[in-house]
Amino acid sequence: MPRFALLGAGFIGSVHAANLAAHPGIDFRLVYDVDQQRAEALAVAHGAVAATSLEEVFDPSRIDAVFIASSTDTHAEHLRRAAAVGIAALCEKPIDLDLDRARETAAFAQQSGVAVMVDFNRRFDRDYAELKRVVDSGEIGKVELIQLTSRGPSMPPLSYVAVSGGQMRDQTVHFFDLARWLSGLDPVEVFATGSALAEPGIAQYDDVDTSAVTLRLPGGALVQIDSVRRTGYGYDERIEIMGSEGMVEARRHRNGAVSRYSGASVVDDGLHPGWFERVQPTYAAALAAFVSSLEGGAAPIPTLDDGLKAQAIAEAATLSLRSGRMEPIKY
Amino acid sequence: MPRFALLGAGFIGSVHAANLAAHPGIDFRLVYDVDQQRAEALAVAHGAVAATSLEEVFDPSRIDAVFIASSTDTHAEHLRRAAAVGIAALCEKPIDLDLDRARETAAFAQQSGVAVMVDFNRRFDRDYAELKRVVDSGEIGKVELIQLTSRGPSMPPLSYVAVSGGQMRDQTVHFFDLARWLSGLDPVEVFATGSALAEPGIAQYDDVDTSAVTLRLPGGALVQIDSVRRTGYGYDERIEIMGSEGMVEARRHRNGAVSRYSGASVVDDGLHPGWFERVQPTYAAALAAFVSSLEGGAAPIPTLDDGLKAQAIAEAATLSLRSGRMEPIKY
Amino acid sequence: MPRFALLGAGFIGSVHAANLAAHPGIDFRLVYDVDQQRAEALAVAHGAVAATSLEEVFDPSRIDAVFIASSTDTHAEHLRRAAAVGIAALCEKPIDLDLDRARETAAFAQQSGVAVMVDFNRRFDRDYAELKRVVDSGEIGKVELIQLTSRGPSMPPLSYVAVSGGQMRDQTVHFFDLARWLSGLDPVEVFATGSALAEPGIAQYDDVDTSAVTLRLPGGALVQIDSVRRTGYGYDERIEIMGSEGMVEARRHRNGAVSRYSGASVVDDGLHPGWFERVQPTYAAALAAFVSSLEGGAAPIPTLDDGLKAQAIAEAATLSLRSGRMEPIKY
Amino acid sequence: MPRFALLGAGFIGSVHAANLAAHPGIDFRLVYDVDQQRAEALAVAHGAVAATSLEEVFDPSRIDAVFIASSTDTHAEHLRRAAAVGIAALCEKPIDLDLDRARETAAFAQQSGVAVMVDFNRRFDRDYAELKRVVDSGEIGKVELIQLTSRGPSMPPLSYVAVSGGQMRDQTVHFFDLARWLSGLDPVEVFATGSALAEPGIAQYDDVDTSAVTLRLPGGALVQIDSVRRTGYGYDERIEIMGSEGMVEARRHRNGAVSRYSGASVVDDGLHPGWFERVQPTYAAALAAFVSSLEGGAAPIPTLDDGLKAQAIAEAATLSLRSGRMEPIKY
Repeated sequence: MPRFALLGAGFIGSVHAANLAAHPGIDFRLVYDVDQQRAEALAVAHGAVAATSLEEVFDPSRIDAVFIASSTDTHAEHLRRAAAVGIAALCEKPIDLDLDRARETAAFAQQSGVAVMVDFNRRFDRDYAELKRVVDSGEIGKVELIQLTSRGPSMPPLSYVAVSGGQMRDQTVHFFDLARWLSGLDPVEVFATGSALAEPGIAQYDDVDTSAVTLRLPGGALVQIDSVRRTGYGYDERIEIMGSEGMVEARRHRNGAVSRYSGASVVDDGLHPGWFERVQPTYAAALAAFVSSLEGGAAPIPTLDDGLKAQAIAEAATLSLRSGRMEPIKY
Repeated sequence: MPRFALLGAGFIGSVHAANLAAHPGIDFRLVYDVDQQRAEALAVAHGAVAATSLEEVFDPSRIDAVFIASSTDTHAEHLRRAAAVGIAALCEKPIDLDLDRARETAAFAQQSGVAVMVDFNRRFDRDYAELKRVVDSGEIGKVELIQLTSRGPSMPPLSYVAVSGGQMRDQTVHFFDLARWLSGLDPVEVFATGSALAEPGIAQYDDVDTSAVTLRLPGGALVQIDSVRRTGYGYDERIEIMGSEGMVEARRHRNGAVSRYSGASVVDDGLHPGWFERVQPTYAAALAAFVSSLEGGAAPIPTLDDGLKAQAIAEAATLSLRSGRMEPIKY
Repeated sequence: MPRFALLGAGFIGSVHAANLAAHPGIDFRLVYDVDQQRAEALAVAHGAVAATSLEEVFDPSRIDAVFIASSTDTHAEHLRRAAAVGIAALCEKPIDLDLDRARETAAFAQQSGVAVMVDFNRRFDRDYAELKRVVDSGEIGKVELIQLTSRGPSMPPLSYVAVSGGQMRDQTVHFFDLARWLSGLDPVEVFATGSALAEPGIAQYDDVDTSAVTLRLPGGALVQIDSVRRTGYGYDERIEIMGSEGMVEARRHRNGAVSRYSGASVVDDGLHPGWFERVQPTYAAALAAFVSSLEGGAAPIPTLDDGLKAQAIAEAATLSLRSGRMEPIKY
Repeated sequence: MPRFALLGAGFIGSVHAANLAAHPGIDFRLVYDVDQQRAEALAVAHGAVAATSLEEVFDPSRIDAVFIASSTDTHAEHLRRAAAVGIAALCEKPIDLDLDRARETAAFAQQSGVAVMVDFNRRFDRDYAELKRVVDSGEIGKVELIQLTSRGPSMPPLSYVAVSGGQMRDQTVHFFDLARWLSGLDPVEVFATGSALAEPGIAQYDDVDTSAVTLRLPGGALVQIDSVRRTGYGYDERIEIMGSEGMVEARRHRNGAVSRYSGASVVDDGLHPGWFERVQPTYAAALAAFVSSLEGGAAPIPTLDDGLKAQAIAEAATLSLRSGRMEPIKY
């Protein structure tokens, strides 16, 4: 039973802690956070222990795998350290906001031979897995057009936006990964345009909150992605894949299945209030896949390379936001 | 091209007039109504002529077929007269509110050999025809349970209720026919219970406006029908047929396909305001089937017998409303 | 933190065990089962201990509450024993298949003053709670017609049917409770008819597998319930409540939200394979409500009286199945 | 009652002929077509007369309005001729495939003062009119993102593609108009990219059959349009408009409302087989609006200017298909 340490005891860290504790095949040992009190509280709540130093965590005699859920700027360092001592790692995206540094880190980790997985959790969504199954089965023929909608309910704080790397790298990157995974193809060119409509203040960071992206896949298939930071109607995510023989769609999720009929209209339950309600089950599923891979010996997927490629698309998209033209994607 | 006369220039008469005029295979000649002015107006609007007497109508040298859409108490007489002179007839249900008289009339008409069809128009609904096709194909196996919902938006006037024969004979009878037709079986027993909830005043006519009916089919399959005179949300009709291998449903129809998302709910277009908007296309389809049958020589369906059987179920259901027990159906 | 013992380590016992273990406000101590090995295995998996005798369980110095999930014929005895020593109880329905014995047991428990709750878990379903909220808000006006659909995917084994008390007492009873709870009214009369269509063999137990029930509520509102043991399309449950001003519906649940478009049709994810997938979250919610009530001091709901009333309806319905007439319900 | 002549007796001409004949406020007089036999047949079927020359048509003593549904290359000439003699005109888009010639023609017609309407029939769709109403009501706040899907079931013949002007001018132009109309704004920039996936042969015409367009509106709102010539699942059209306060969607239309449940899936009626079934009612509605405007004296909408603006967007989009960059739109 692999012994796990969790790095990061913030909101997403607490989600992972609960999943680590609930997984019957995991021995959840340590929680580390720069705020030791926070680490302590989270560890206690889930029957683990707070680590007092990173040395405790990166000790292969006590820990087999780390879950890196600390702040973005620490991912690369933690990953490198895990790789150096032969500890497996499940790492929140991105490896590093700087793509060159991310590449170096990934190369180092790959040479080390340790099992590393990037936590693109949406791949483990029940509906998206079904999309993938349908596409791979050939049922809709050759993929020709993909549409992805990614819309959050409310602007993150400006302090977050300031260090996020921008909408492409922070939000849309999940959908760049889904587009690659679902089509089985690496996009070759990208066009992006966007505006600061929900929060004009983000223009000071040269960022956008409402954007439209178009990708070209090898062979000419197209992908459209819209990314929105703030809707007036909850969290909205949907994917549609059209092929030469048919189309498959993962519809918006609703909060419930109640309909109220009166007068000339029907009022249904709306969308989830936030992203977390929508994607919550995917975190446990991703963790289970990682553990499964550790046991089975096969390299875990999504790989570091998947992480790098999604980032490379985000880089080119960010460039296109400024250039107003289709940009080639350099992997 | 059959020459038609229309009997009755009320609301439903005007619907039939428009369909008679629009059908390319019909020569629409005459309109008769006890209110001659009304006949005149309707005839003019559709390129026909107002008949001044019933003799003009029931003249086989000038008319090949009559559409009987006059008041209920005149159906039997018109039908008998048409049969007597060899004029085909498409007749609004019921043949007569008095089942014995209806039977005698039907027997007379059947002996005459003229083509007669009872206008159970819902059989010609696109979705119900698809239900029938699915059931007949064997796709859902043996029919085990049928549910029919029949809910009107508003109480008819008391004056109408007084002469309607009651909810079973007036409203539910359409669904008795649908249940027979869809299952291909003649129900053997019926239980009905109801209340005067929307309009307590109808209790004086020993009538109900909200009722629940259960039919037993040969072999033990069951049918549930709810009939409501007044909803607070428009016209509501749906049918569900469960078989041993699956289920098929004709869903409620919506007014349109617009959804408005805001806050925590989604507002969709509601149901049709009235029964007419829901079933309108079925009238033209029923007429077309009648004409087709006149041309092809096969006896038109639904037959007078279909009309009598639906009435027989309504009789037994009306009896059950009072007896509180399952009543045998006497065809 | 209340100390719990679980009675019964079968399938449903294992569901409750997981919920007892996961609830942060419960101290899960003991598991008892007539099959001690089974008790042992379940206890170990959830950090509890297997009780070697019922004396250990009904010891108020060690246990505050019992969860009675043992075989039906033991419910009354366990409940009585808990009440006798002042231990709270959450009891699977029914209290006893014999209504008189159930009444005596309930009377004894009520006199003892211990907190007892009957586990009509569906009341804790998110969608049904929303139905209740809408009805209570007055939004749909006065309740006039309720429809409940209860359809399981496959016949239980004949051995189960033989001791189940029949479809009304075993399956439909949940919906009798829902009808009472949602309407806030105690039905006065019931009509039921049914057939053995899925498994003719159950006729030897004088039982049915496909049935239609109609209830009359005080004031004349009606309730229709269809109960089916075996569908060809998964587990199907839906509720619709029509009032004088509108209607509210808890739709069927789907397995997922994927639609596949090709040719002239759209293939959607179907229903859950079984009842458990549909109602699973309600068990934890019911348990949480019980614990909440223990802490808050208010009597837990559904009460023993709720359990008795649903059973009384089932008795009258069972009688009606044979008599073919509306039967009064004797609470 | 305005006297109408119809120019063009092809497929779309026959649709207009039926609507002209059915409209109670129109005196449908003449049909003209270069193929006189075709004109004759269509005229006879609808109670009109075949014109033997254009002189008969453009004679204001006999004709008040023309419906220009002839081949695209004749629109401008017919429009100019109607304007010259003071005959009102309802004109199929485009005015002319050559934007400069279209502009000259429009200027001439506008100076003449005759009533002219461009037949962007989708504006008269019930659901799209409801979208417009919702947007204009302010219910969804300020428009921020619009998505339009335009997907036909099958490739038009290559001979048609060859003279169509390309996908932007022929297909997407309808959605450029809808985007302008629904937002109330003239797009300022456009990006388009596309591929020949369904029919590689169209590449010889420098055309595409699968494309993705992004428009920028004044103020930064974005529009995404996907245009597809051939799906494997029927005719697919949907529109979604997100604003700062909510979202409104006109969903795909289905062929019917029947659902078949079996095993683990639900099979629903699919989309319409072709564009005509989807938009058919809009033609009569557009014609009615034109007649209404002739009677009321207000200038009909959509105007020639609306036609020119949609074309200007199509021009810039066609340019962008080649340049790979955002192009300014020159009205």
